[in-house]
Amino acid sequence: MIRFESDYLEGALPEIMARLQETNYVQTAGYGVDPYCDAAREKIKAACEAENADVHFLVGGTQTNTTVIAAALRPHQGVLAAESAHIEAHETGAIEATGHKVLTLPSLDGKIRAEQVREYVLRHRADESFEHIVQPAMVYISQPTETGTVYSFSELKEISKTCRELGILLFVDGARLACALSLDYTPTLQELAELTDVFYIGGTKHGALFGEAVVILNEDLKKDFRYMIKQRGGMFAKGRLLGIQFEALFTDELYFKTGAHEMRLADKLRSAFSDKGIEFYYNSPTNQLFPVLNDAQLEKLSAKYSFSLQKRLDDGHTVTRFCTSWASREEDIDGLISDINAL
Amino acid sequence: MIRFESDYLEGALPEIMARLQETNYVQTAGYGVDPYCDAAREKIKAACEAENADVHFLVGGTQTNTTVIAAALRPHQGVLAAESAHIEAHETGAIEATGHKVLTLPSLDGKIRAEQVREYVLRHRADESFEHIVQPAMVYISQPTETGTVYSFSELKEISKTCRELGILLFVDGARLACALSLDYTPTLQELAELTDVFYIGGTKHGALFGEAVVILNEDLKKDFRYMIKQRGGMFAKGRLLGIQFEALFTDELYFKTGAHEMRLADKLRSAFSDKGIEFYYNSPTNQLFPVLNDAQLEKLSAKYSFSLQKRLDDGHTVTRFCTSWASREEDIDGLISDINAL
Amino acid sequence: MIRFESDYLEGALPEIMARLQETNYVQTAGYGVDPYCDAAREKIKAACEAENADVHFLVGGTQTNTTVIAAALRPHQGVLAAESAHIEAHETGAIEATGHKVLTLPSLDGKIRAEQVREYVLRHRADESFEHIVQPAMVYISQPTETGTVYSFSELKEISKTCRELGILLFVDGARLACALSLDYTPTLQELAELTDVFYIGGTKHGALFGEAVVILNEDLKKDFRYMIKQRGGMFAKGRLLGIQFEALFTDELYFKTGAHEMRLADKLRSAFSDKGIEFYYNSPTNQLFPVLNDAQLEKLSAKYSFSLQKRLDDGHTVTRFCTSWASREEDIDGLISDINAL
Amino acid sequence: MIRFESDYLEGALPEIMARLQETNYVQTAGYGVDPYCDAAREKIKAACEAENADVHFLVGGTQTNTTVIAAALRPHQGVLAAESAHIEAHETGAIEATGHKVLTLPSLDGKIRAEQVREYVLRHRADESFEHIVQPAMVYISQPTETGTVYSFSELKEISKTCRELGILLFVDGARLACALSLDYTPTLQELAELTDVFYIGGTKHGALFGEAVVILNEDLKKDFRYMIKQRGGMFAKGRLLGIQFEALFTDELYFKTGAHEMRLADKLRSAFSDKGIEFYYNSPTNQLFPVLNDAQLEKLSAKYSFSLQKRLDDGHTVTRFCTSWASREEDIDGLISDINAL
Repeated sequence: MIRFESDYLEGALPEIMARLQETNYVQTAGYGVDPYCDAAREKIKAACEAENADVHFLVGGTQTNTTVIAAALRPHQGVLAAESAHIEAHETGAIEATGHKVLTLPSLDGKIRAEQVREYVLRHRADESFEHIVQPAMVYISQPTETGTVYSFSELKEISKTCRELGILLFVDGARLACALSLDYTPTLQELAELTDVFYIGGTKHGALFGEAVVILNEDLKKDFRYMIKQRGGMFAKGRLLGIQFEALFTDELYFKTGAHEMRLADKLRSAFSDKGIEFYYNSPTNQLFPVLNDAQLEKLSAKYSFSLQKRLDDGHTVTRFCTSWASREEDIDGLISDINAL
Repeated sequence: MIRFESDYLEGALPEIMARLQETNYVQTAGYGVDPYCDAAREKIKAACEAENADVHFLVGGTQTNTTVIAAALRPHQGVLAAESAHIEAHETGAIEATGHKVLTLPSLDGKIRAEQVREYVLRHRADESFEHIVQPAMVYISQPTETGTVYSFSELKEISKTCRELGILLFVDGARLACALSLDYTPTLQELAELTDVFYIGGTKHGALFGEAVVILNEDLKKDFRYMIKQRGGMFAKGRLLGIQFEALFTDELYFKTGAHEMRLADKLRSAFSDKGIEFYYNSPTNQLFPVLNDAQLEKLSAKYSFSLQKRLDDGHTVTRFCTSWASREEDIDGLISDINAL
Repeated sequence: MIRFESDYLEGALPEIMARLQETNYVQTAGYGVDPYCDAAREKIKAACEAENADVHFLVGGTQTNTTVIAAALRPHQGVLAAESAHIEAHETGAIEATGHKVLTLPSLDGKIRAEQVREYVLRHRADESFEHIVQPAMVYISQPTETGTVYSFSELKEISKTCRELGILLFVDGARLACALSLDYTPTLQELAELTDVFYIGGTKHGALFGEAVVILNEDLKKDFRYMIKQRGGMFAKGRLLGIQFEALFTDELYFKTGAHEMRLADKLRSAFSDKGIEFYYNSPTNQLFPVLNDAQLEKLSAKYSFSLQKRLDDGHTVTRFCTSWASREEDIDGLISDINAL
Repeated sequence: MIRFESDYLEGALPEIMARLQETNYVQTAGYGVDPYCDAAREKIKAACEAENADVHFLVGGTQTNTTVIAAALRPHQGVLAAESAHIEAHETGAIEATGHKVLTLPSLDGKIRAEQVREYVLRHRADESFEHIVQPAMVYISQPTETGTVYSFSELKEISKTCRELGILLFVDGARLACALSLDYTPTLQELAELTDVFYIGGTKHGALFGEAVVILNEDLKKDFRYMIKQRGGMFAKGRLLGIQFEALFTDELYFKTGAHEMRLADKLRSAFSDKGIEFYYNSPTNQLFPVLNDAQLEKLSAKYSFSLQKRLDDGHTVTRFCTSWASREEDIDGLISDINAL
């Protein structure tokens, strides 16, 4: 069985495993104040051209979202997000467990539009009962989104402009950021640093064992952020493990190369499904593909491959998900393509 | 200016004011363990034919919703409610501030259907990622709803049956319950006590200065509930004030008569709008009416009356709200009706 | 049975009951934006000589403490308080339920000293693990304290100076403030307004049916405070009831006269215990007295009076509490004094 | 500089690094439902002789404490712990951030006694204001404690018996459990499984890169625990990494051997300090030593070694901490001992 159901099925890139091995007996202080973390921070700030940024390393996505959002909001404030956003749909109420409401915006493709944000905020401000309603104070988007779609540079710029005009924060979840960075019409790291208040660079889904690098640009958010990390359970004892991994990812463009690898294999796979006349439920240009398989196709592919079943569409069709990852091998993709061709 | 924008514009029923005055110098213990509270509890249990119920008195609706829901749920559980539910739309995230997500169901009339509950819960249970999604564990409905509509006995029975089959709790917010009780096709107090796990009998909007009486039927919910009241700020020092008011409301059917008065005047007003060809945005049979006024009508009525503006419908029309209350005077309603006729 | 166990055993001052009756049918907007609340706010600001203060009315003490503290602190911050403070000892974890730790300082008399605050904060800042420890960000004191003791003007000034030097907030719980105001060595309302960031003027224990008036001086705390009130369940539908009561309390010095009455009767009672050689467990100059009774005394007084049993001191003695209130009658105090003399 | 300030200064045991390397390209499902986690669970249950236990793997200690405690308590309940307990003193209010109060018991040696628990709980139950006070519902202890001391089998048995008689839960934090297990008078894994409701086996400080294995014995606590893990940010995407590490630790007694190694080197070091007449601030029989150094000693040792400064004791003395770890080398310990001898 060859697995494609997610992009966290294997361990880590060989460069990372090697560095972990090499440094195994080096002694460092704990909790992220070691030389490896320092070096990784410098490399990330350089890549973002954001010398004044604060960079923190956390273990996973839910932890990161919770820590950032709870640190930024006052009790009566909520965070705007698409209905399909990870914080709304797949974190078991982790944001609410910190006391904050996720304020949802409808979305068919996983993205929200600047105009939706503006309308929501202005409607709240114009409501005579505004004090009885959670105050929208932050926008959360994922790049790429949970459905694989991406924000173009101009879309993000428009959202950023809207947020700044309205005086609310913009937070970008980059769990799979390397894939988005690999497209030429999406914001670069430098542009993300210019346009957002805080974003993160996902490691877990791009070849690290684990780890997310939070880049904070907004001065108010920087203050006391390490207390927040500790309180939310993210102050990692052997914090150097995060530094070692991100230092490796930001050496010799490894992070970008990993994204490019995932994207190239996804492109091949996308074409194979398309050529076969199989449609996609979401129009994803990134490493998550959502082909709609009929029952015969589903049965045949299931015999040899694992992939995720998203939802039953109608009596004969199912939305599925296939992901490529840093570890996907060309020969496995080619094999899958042959099997698709033979459907 | 005669005001109709809500049903909490005045003080309290004369019977209540008189009792407060008469008992003013009587000394009693604090925190709701006095003879007045005891007597009120007995009267309410008798009215509900629920001798084993626990009855607690709280000050207001948001406090009551928060206390009940936080007492009932474990951290990973959420409460199902209509999109327009008070706890979702107008409590500034009070439920989320206790750590719990409100799980919304779409609704055009403020009501939810048993089938929606069943589908939501079964879909959650069937999802392979169910542990990544908030677990629905309680249904919250308002009787009447925020839009003035009501659940019939058979509708509530169906919701209750569904909740019990699914093993989830049913909680009814009765902030304006007296109005619903006044209709012959809605559940009675006894039926509410049979069909729900917990509900409350609203005083604030039916002639009390303030106060909501929580009736707990479910044994698990009874345990340690007074701790919850204290923690959520609802342990009222001079608790007897709540007992005195509810004892008065449940003496000589005062609560029911108050509801009937509000309903009778609302019926007259509803007919007047209808006769004039003015449509209602929500089809409310209770004391909140939502006529859609055109700009000319709005301007004329605004000169003499205050009422609430719910939303701008289109370029020439506005959804408004007119409420009758325990204190509404027949002559004021008749005057308003004349002015409607003259529009 | 004549009761002395607390100061919330009766209803309200006749001036308040009369005003509630007089205004009963006047129509006003809800939620504290009515003319009575406005008038009460103006009177309180005038009494405090603090024209720029924001004044809000809440229903009870726990609700007020919770709302103020949760509004002021970021997630990693805690509030310093005496071990015997109400928020630490008698609010069922209401502060923790908002996510914040109460950081306790030892105290024998219910008061904390400026030096304790300074030491605690400086020790935290000097600790290399400071980010692993809750950050002290506010001082909470009660005036009078839970044991009836009071802060002198110079003591409060010193605490205030310390807080400002350290950059932390000062919050004064004035549930029984009228008693403290009645002493000549304690801070006046104007001085409280100068020295604190926020304090409240207790109504419940000084002749109101209920109600606490929060006076916010610190600009940062003012922002969006009404959202906080709503979220914590304190947005009172018939908010005017609070305005009417506080307007009455701040008309013709009624609040101060009420405090003076409670204090005068407490003084008489204190002398009676002292003259009899009965000692006090706490050295309270206010309306709560804590005489240590032997078993014979306890039995005799219990036959005719109710009072609260604080703790068993040793095999033959019990710490008790006797309170005077706005409603205490001279003849009842005199009768009790005779019975004390006859012990 | 040779470092002794903590036991998380290095990476992981060679056996663990080897297994991570070997399994790097194996594909498995995420979130802890893979064959490695299953195998590790079986080995741990076998070692505990607790076939019905539920075993979950989390990333770190604060996360584990928060998840277990928040899962177990209802809103009005708190957890009893020593004043020096990690959850009280060094987790930035993580427990309070879940809404629960830590109820502290005084302790000079980091341990609490069964009698203290009994007294606290019975005093609460006897208090007339019990509903105004947080309800103690769980005991949290660390084995070894934060000061290196340990509970003997009979001490733990007495605490367990007391908890069961009182109907409250017992939770043991075993962040450094391997050290305690290495002593013959402490409870074994099987005894921990018999005497507690839930405990955890610490990996981070015993040679894993990271990871804590939670063993749940109490049926009520087992229910829906994975939801709690997800909500608190502990649902690790590449969950297999935890399984691989714990499987290695519980193969060929590696966990026990690691503890024994740490203890043997600590014993040598302890003797060296003692022989030199240097006293210990805490009487720790485990791998954390707390020698009190005078300024001359401090200066000399600081030149060559790093260790942690706990607190300034008096004008000439400082409490320090030296830890041995899985990675401590015999020659480094011997070198340090020579330097101590030469002081």
